Amino acid sequence: MVGGWGEKVKAKIHVTLKPGILDPQGKAIEQALATLGYSSASNVRMGKYLELDLNEKDKVKAEVEVKAMCEKLLANTIIEEYRYELV
Amino acid sequence: MVGGWGEKVKAKIHVTLKPGILDPQGKAIEQALATLGYSSASNVRMGKYLELDLNEKDKVKAEVEVKAMCEKLLANTIIEEYRYELV
Repeated sequence: MVGGWGEKVKAKIHVTLKPGILDPQGKAIEQALATLGYSSASNVRMGKYLELDLNEKDKVKAEVEVKAMCEKLLANTIIEEYRYELV
Repeated sequence: MVGGWGEKVKAKIHVTLKPGILDPQGKAIEQALATLGYSSASNVRMGKYLELDLNEKDKVKAEVEVKAMCEKLLANTIIEEYRYELV
């Protein structure tokens, strides 16, 4: 993955709450699912999924850039963790 | 993946806007990234990522249930598409 050369790089980024951080949105979904009859669902955790294209042929540089984007804007690293893959 | 038997099944669900559907949230992120100096990012698409546990040992039944949850609550199938994996 790292070191490849192409025209464009697509980044797929997951941003999720750190374990132990309360997830009210997930809880709301869990209750809504229970109301609909799906009471077997538990530990619902809600996160974000982003896809973006990078106009950067060098995957090493692209990775540095994506990491910086996550740190500075896409994730709140106090309560969230992120992971990404470049394709 | 289908047909396995375990104690619990974890579902990982991605809900994304269908191609061609306008993504104002993605556009806002793209502009924010450009403001921060990351103007090489384009086609930013924002989606949702959910994880949940299912108290269902039969993965075939679990898959039916997750599909129904996506159709009825988690995704707006008019503008969104979903995919899931069970682990």
